[in-house]
Amino acid sequence: MSKKNKDFVEKVTAMEEDFSQWYTDVVKQAELVDYGPVRGTMIIRPYGYAIWENIQGEFDRQFKETGHTNVYFPLFIPESMLQKEKDHIEGFAPEVAWVTHGGDEELEERIVVRPTSEVLFGEYYSKNIHSYRDLPKLYNQWANVVRWEKTTRPFLRTSEFLWQEGHTCHATKEEAEHETRQMLDVYADVCENFLAIPVLKGKKTEKEKFAGAEYTLTIESMMHDGRALQSGTSHYLGTGFAEAFDIQYLDKEGKQQYVHQTSWGVSTRIMGALIMVHGDNRGLVVPPRVAPTQAMIVPIAQHKEGVLDKAYELRDRLKDIVRVDIDASDKMPGWKFNEYEMKGIPVRIEMGPRDIENNLVVLVRRDTGEKEFVAMDDLAERLPALLEEIQQHLYESALKHRENMTSVAKTMDEFKQILDEKGGFIKAMWCGNIECEEKIKEDTTATSRCIPFDQEHISDTCVCCGEKAKEMVYWSKAY
Amino acid sequence: MSKKNKDFVEKVTAMEEDFSQWYTDVVKQAELVDYGPVRGTMIIRPYGYAIWENIQGEFDRQFKETGHTNVYFPLFIPESMLQKEKDHIEGFAPEVAWVTHGGDEELEERIVVRPTSEVLFGEYYSKNIHSYRDLPKLYNQWANVVRWEKTTRPFLRTSEFLWQEGHTCHATKEEAEHETRQMLDVYADVCENFLAIPVLKGKKTEKEKFAGAEYTLTIESMMHDGRALQSGTSHYLGTGFAEAFDIQYLDKEGKQQYVHQTSWGVSTRIMGALIMVHGDNRGLVVPPRVAPTQAMIVPIAQHKEGVLDKAYELRDRLKDIVRVDIDASDKMPGWKFNEYEMKGIPVRIEMGPRDIENNLVVLVRRDTGEKEFVAMDDLAERLPALLEEIQQHLYESALKHRENMTSVAKTMDEFKQILDEKGGFIKAMWCGNIECEEKIKEDTTATSRCIPFDQEHISDTCVCCGEKAKEMVYWSKAY
Repeated sequence: MSKKNKDFVEKVTAMEEDFSQWYTDVVKQAELVDYGPVRGTMIIRPYGYAIWENIQGEFDRQFKETGHTNVYFPLFIPESMLQKEKDHIEGFAPEVAWVTHGGDEELEERIVVRPTSEVLFGEYYSKNIHSYRDLPKLYNQWANVVRWEKTTRPFLRTSEFLWQEGHTCHATKEEAEHETRQMLDVYADVCENFLAIPVLKGKKTEKEKFAGAEYTLTIESMMHDGRALQSGTSHYLGTGFAEAFDIQYLDKEGKQQYVHQTSWGVSTRIMGALIMVHGDNRGLVVPPRVAPTQAMIVPIAQHKEGVLDKAYELRDRLKDIVRVDIDASDKMPGWKFNEYEMKGIPVRIEMGPRDIENNLVVLVRRDTGEKEFVAMDDLAERLPALLEEIQQHLYESALKHRENMTSVAKTMDEFKQILDEKGGFIKAMWCGNIECEEKIKEDTTATSRCIPFDQEHISDTCVCCGEKAKEMVYWSKAY
Repeated sequence: MSKKNKDFVEKVTAMEEDFSQWYTDVVKQAELVDYGPVRGTMIIRPYGYAIWENIQGEFDRQFKETGHTNVYFPLFIPESMLQKEKDHIEGFAPEVAWVTHGGDEELEERIVVRPTSEVLFGEYYSKNIHSYRDLPKLYNQWANVVRWEKTTRPFLRTSEFLWQEGHTCHATKEEAEHETRQMLDVYADVCENFLAIPVLKGKKTEKEKFAGAEYTLTIESMMHDGRALQSGTSHYLGTGFAEAFDIQYLDKEGKQQYVHQTSWGVSTRIMGALIMVHGDNRGLVVPPRVAPTQAMIVPIAQHKEGVLDKAYELRDRLKDIVRVDIDASDKMPGWKFNEYEMKGIPVRIEMGPRDIENNLVVLVRRDTGEKEFVAMDDLAERLPALLEEIQQHLYESALKHRENMTSVAKTMDEFKQILDEKGGFIKAMWCGNIECEEKIKEDTTATSRCIPFDQEHISDTCVCCGEKAKEMVYWSKAY
């Protein structure tokens, strides 16, 4: 904690005034990140990392539950290896960092700092898969990756970020497609049930899919300011990498077959969603299930006899039930209130001499600000229930916001008017041609977010060209 | 698992024949690692990574128990920042990887891929520490680092490796020195009580200390072949980095003071120690506390009615007590025995039709090969006890080996004879001059491993120059 934050907590800019500044203020004031010395890199500070560790833990648990094992592949990729899959290199070459020297010597071949690891896994699988009995391979890794971005923002777009990347091989298209969808469902489940972020599930258009994939599935969430954020993607790679890297297996009939592959990833970007879906003008709001500290005890008039003893006693009684902490520092209670509101700790527990006399504490919800008096003996029951209510309330508020921010457009005039007036998701029909997709982006800066699994029939014709519509697409300005 | 290992398990070279080849065979046959495409990098495969995850878990638990929090600092360091601490850059410059281009553009300033992160933490602390109330700072990160090594071996010396690096700031020298020692003790505790690897604790000589430290504490362990392996180091940095990066705080008297720092690290290198301390000519031996699978059920004549049902039933009964798995594949039991011996799984549980009839199973210890018949009803009690016996036995065997491999030398003739005949640790007196240390290395290739905290008086004079001895040193050839 910096001196600044020990002495006073600065206010954040109101989000209605300047959303971008609000975001920057929150990540700084809530002590989530700091800027690294190399452009676009970030330092994830203790509080930010503790949240990330909890997110990691939940994803990792579900990956293992669905049969995946963790591995670690190298940071470095030889240039020639990255070039084996043509679409892939075209997609990534403009944004990679190049290592050209080791110690004093110039390298014979330039090395890429991994922007993603499909090619490394491809090479490995090629050597290690021989028979149908070697399948499926269900690998995941937690790693840092580097993409040399021009404009960067903490969590949302950074030159280096942390993520997990799953890479799997399967005997058949059906199995690989099942895996692609299964992992998207895992992502959606963690977002909705752990992070309280409602998501839309769907498929990316050809234009927006991963470089080298047959198709990309995505989950999309809606931020406070009406922009969408892609929160996780799962790619069906088909046999493209298998052909480029010669990953074949002998099937039960003794025939050589290419494997079908998937890859899927979620990154520290999701921290940006957490901030922009739940935060408010008093700072961060962390849903209870992901919160490193779920309840913070703030003693009032702690110099008075018995107050601190009682506070520690309460902490000890609660600590196996919820993640509880106590701030017994010599700061004023008001400063402590501000600090933990800024950090978005779900519940504050106030207890002063009079409360103790009455065998009561005050619970203050971060999300609504509501206070309630609870008898100390009831706390072990009431506190977990309250945390659950907060979790649900955050999800429902976010869902309501998304619903409010979802509109329908049948013409480009409507489309533009919605974008100008409120932003958010626009449901509109599309002919399937990339020309219309590009024109919409050019005219409005909105992009296709996904072709949702849950299709609706809005009209018969493409919102852009007026030709026969193929499917409904969610459009939005996006991070 | 590669086809090779599904069809048959290759033998490993006998360690007495060629220790280095034995090591290479074990890491490959036990499916711990594979080579990455860039020289000196490694792929940590599922089984190797599962062991590493368990090691990480135990260290992380103890770091948190001692008040440390995790953070993440960037991979990239600007060249000018690395140069701020003179000794540090001199120590690391020859072995760093340089990033010179981002996308198509040449960078204005070259970037170092972190070989360690003292300077990044230094810069951060400089900005974030102001008052004594900001202290101590107790940060740790789990990360990959890169050192451009000329000769590499899996786990022992790789261009990229995984590690944790702790970086702390304290108000006083005493506190920082206490931290330095405390973290060494944590390392020693995990090595001895979790990994069953006995370690010597002591201080590095000036020559062998970390570039930029006041002094370095180390734990040293003894491999099967008589070579030592540095298994973890903890550095007292003094105020060197604080002065280079201007990390000052206002003390209680209102005076500016430099902070006192420490840093400490353990890496995937420790996997090498695990292999070379416990392994044997049948492959890896994993101590039960760190083993991803502690007991493997191998059904015998599994095609016979009831065998598999009973095996799964047993697995379900045991799975909350120990980490148990079952191999119900169609491989022959003999192949399975070999495979799990190669992987060093502590206990094999055999159960065939006759055993089931008699309500028995056979437990086979990986370490000694001993078999015992155990009544099924007693397993829930016997199996954890057996695992504990194995854990203790591995530790005691390793300790006995180290004791057998520890000698005393009073003269250089004795010193050389011991090295030629058996290797191991040599306890010998030293005058404290770097000239003698360098001469010993030049003449024998043995290096000073540590000045142990537990000093003994071997003789009055330096083993090398015959001048007055200052202290006893452990010497050894080392990895």
